[in-house]
Amino acid sequence: MRTPMIILNMKSYREAEGKLSLVLARTCEKVALETGASIAVCPPMVELSRVALEVSIPVLAQNVDMWDATVRTGSTSLGAVKNAGAIGTLVNHSECRRLLSDIGHIVDSARGMGLTTIVCTNNVAASRAAAALAPDMIAMEPPELIGGDISVTTADPRIVEDTVRAVREAAPGVMVLTGAGVKDGNDVRKALELGTVGVLLASGVVKAKDPGKVLLSLAEGLVGRR
Amino acid sequence: MRTPMIILNMKSYREAEGKLSLVLARTCEKVALETGASIAVCPPMVELSRVALEVSIPVLAQNVDMWDATVRTGSTSLGAVKNAGAIGTLVNHSECRRLLSDIGHIVDSARGMGLTTIVCTNNVAASRAAAALAPDMIAMEPPELIGGDISVTTADPRIVEDTVRAVREAAPGVMVLTGAGVKDGNDVRKALELGTVGVLLASGVVKAKDPGKVLLSLAEGLVGRR
Amino acid sequence: MRTPMIILNMKSYREAEGKLSLVLARTCEKVALETGASIAVCPPMVELSRVALEVSIPVLAQNVDMWDATVRTGSTSLGAVKNAGAIGTLVNHSECRRLLSDIGHIVDSARGMGLTTIVCTNNVAASRAAAALAPDMIAMEPPELIGGDISVTTADPRIVEDTVRAVREAAPGVMVLTGAGVKDGNDVRKALELGTVGVLLASGVVKAKDPGKVLLSLAEGLVGRR
Amino acid sequence: MRTPMIILNMKSYREAEGKLSLVLARTCEKVALETGASIAVCPPMVELSRVALEVSIPVLAQNVDMWDATVRTGSTSLGAVKNAGAIGTLVNHSECRRLLSDIGHIVDSARGMGLTTIVCTNNVAASRAAAALAPDMIAMEPPELIGGDISVTTADPRIVEDTVRAVREAAPGVMVLTGAGVKDGNDVRKALELGTVGVLLASGVVKAKDPGKVLLSLAEGLVGRR
Repeated sequence: MRTPMIILNMKSYREAEGKLSLVLARTCEKVALETGASIAVCPPMVELSRVALEVSIPVLAQNVDMWDATVRTGSTSLGAVKNAGAIGTLVNHSECRRLLSDIGHIVDSARGMGLTTIVCTNNVAASRAAAALAPDMIAMEPPELIGGDISVTTADPRIVEDTVRAVREAAPGVMVLTGAGVKDGNDVRKALELGTVGVLLASGVVKAKDPGKVLLSLAEGLVGRR
Repeated sequence: MRTPMIILNMKSYREAEGKLSLVLARTCEKVALETGASIAVCPPMVELSRVALEVSIPVLAQNVDMWDATVRTGSTSLGAVKNAGAIGTLVNHSECRRLLSDIGHIVDSARGMGLTTIVCTNNVAASRAAAALAPDMIAMEPPELIGGDISVTTADPRIVEDTVRAVREAAPGVMVLTGAGVKDGNDVRKALELGTVGVLLASGVVKAKDPGKVLLSLAEGLVGRR
Repeated sequence: MRTPMIILNMKSYREAEGKLSLVLARTCEKVALETGASIAVCPPMVELSRVALEVSIPVLAQNVDMWDATVRTGSTSLGAVKNAGAIGTLVNHSECRRLLSDIGHIVDSARGMGLTTIVCTNNVAASRAAAALAPDMIAMEPPELIGGDISVTTADPRIVEDTVRAVREAAPGVMVLTGAGVKDGNDVRKALELGTVGVLLASGVVKAKDPGKVLLSLAEGLVGRR
Repeated sequence: MRTPMIILNMKSYREAEGKLSLVLARTCEKVALETGASIAVCPPMVELSRVALEVSIPVLAQNVDMWDATVRTGSTSLGAVKNAGAIGTLVNHSECRRLLSDIGHIVDSARGMGLTTIVCTNNVAASRAAAALAPDMIAMEPPELIGGDISVTTADPRIVEDTVRAVREAAPGVMVLTGAGVKDGNDVRKALELGTVGVLLASGVVKAKDPGKVLLSLAEGLVGRR
């Protein structure tokens, strides 16, 4: 994935069920092509393969449950994610927390399979801890701001800067994204100014009246136009 | 879904990752059309939408995590399953056990949305308990026989008969499937003779050298030919 | 345990930490001796052995995690509960829900060890389901009323009667307790009138200014005085 | 707790149920007094209060489930552990893994209450991650060696040294214990030589024919006699 970047997490929003996830992914693709911004999407788990097949932008899973040869019903393996056409996965989202020990296994196994991992964290200490496991990226989102109206970069710019610094110290190669409350290009610009390589967001786009318009604003914030 | 029936659970087998899940589903479709047998498939979660879109036979989810309006990352809602084109879902598979209280919520919500529920159980008492929650079907599989070489109908026909009787007593409208170790048409025939409406199986087909051949045998056992 | 009965679940209330759990248990013991009411207590897990050693009334665990020979750190086995001096355990409390399959294992193993099981449920269907697993008792508590000010017997007497009827049909030997919002002797009397063998309660006593006074009222409701 | 030290995790072994946990704790106390070695014990959860009350050596919980004001049934809070008389708790044992985010909350809340935290980890990367959360100690145990006959210090001295170095880099104040397969004083001596402040062990003592004799050997390894 090219950085800086925007990652759209569609979660399990009704607005992203079935065909709607494809419509959203195509809107992202269109804005990415028009603006040159790097945009990736995390469709609902059951739409992963279909979306990955139909769009040219990077697609990531929202979660994986298995990283070894275990076979289970209802669980999603790294192999399933890869063969569905995704380039990687979110790990440990605040709505899908993982065991410390499992995060390490997922990150290591994913790297061995050429899959990107973005480990979500909730504060500076957890970000430093996650950095020690050497994922590709860390997405720091204060849980209390997720789904809200105020961007983390406005509400608490300090926590973003501190995260960037902590991760740089702990593992220089690991990139930092931030999220929670991100709504427009200004939030993206501020996120980049604070040292991140972009944003992870969900409701701000998925539940927007006009997702394309919001995405355009975000993309312009990312590529520095306007 | 027409009964009697065969349900193929693809689990998270490597042999069903990515495009292979579609190939397997099409093989099921072909055998269903040729023999008149009712066959449904449960693809890997990330392939659900794609498979449902491409085949004409019924498709079910292997699991759902949410049944109300909660939004989460990495979880699959009943709405997501429905809008992916599935007609229902397995619930409480032995590799994906659920809380007693959640099973009730899932069954009730699924019915409200027109989705079929097949609650998996491990013995007679659990089957009677599950029947009290009034799902559409119960699939009784002794966990110790799952993935093995001996069919439940051979190893323990008594447990199948007792399950059928217990469910009939507890909730006359609930149909019983059985599974574990099912390999060929004989196993299917026996399952029907024991009072079930069919079988739930996985490795016997997914890991077979020639899945189409196994499916043909199973289908013939189901529709009474040979 | 003699019925009718009152079971006091101390949960993890601060008011029941350390020595306070023993004080509460002794208050229960005193009221039981004075009134002749059958009262049992569920102390915090870490106080189980100490309380069981010090009081003469029945003591139950709030939960068990293991029922076979597995050894784990931080988990509580049926053997640990028994050797701590408890006579049984709550199972599947609404704040500690269990897998359907595990409830069956716990009930069966507990019976084999001479331990009493009280399976908590949230509605009529779940109670019928739990009855099929043949525990000694079922404690039906509508989760939305737990910790509240209105007793289940006032708020929803119908759900209690329906539970008693459903359990009687499904498994005649299984006794029914009810709970949620129980505050005084009137609530207990009503619970008995509705066909239960008593109540399971927590905050009404644990957080009372004068637990002894509340217990006395409850006990009088139980033994029919006043 | 004085370092260097030995921590005996009694897990849920039958050999430590009921009164036996007290016998074991007293054996530890006796050896500690005789040799001057610092020995702490983690009794079964349901014996915590009783053991803490009866012995003079430090007692730790095997696990805590809650760290805030939440009240739940069957769960153990930091407050319950403290008021039971324990001085701290193991966190994230390989048989009781925790979410990355919860480990941070537990460590922070425990410190605020004056409780010691020992976070268990399975390898170097996880140890570095855990160190970032600033617990008092980290106990690194390769899961594949737990319960076995070969000590981690013999089987894989390198992983112990690397852990000590990684933790020292990430958080200089955090001490390192090691465990898995520890059987006698030689294993303890080696653990100290590799830079740890002691050992965490279980079966080697709990399942020994003569636990006192094994403890004596361990203690002598710790205090440098023989």
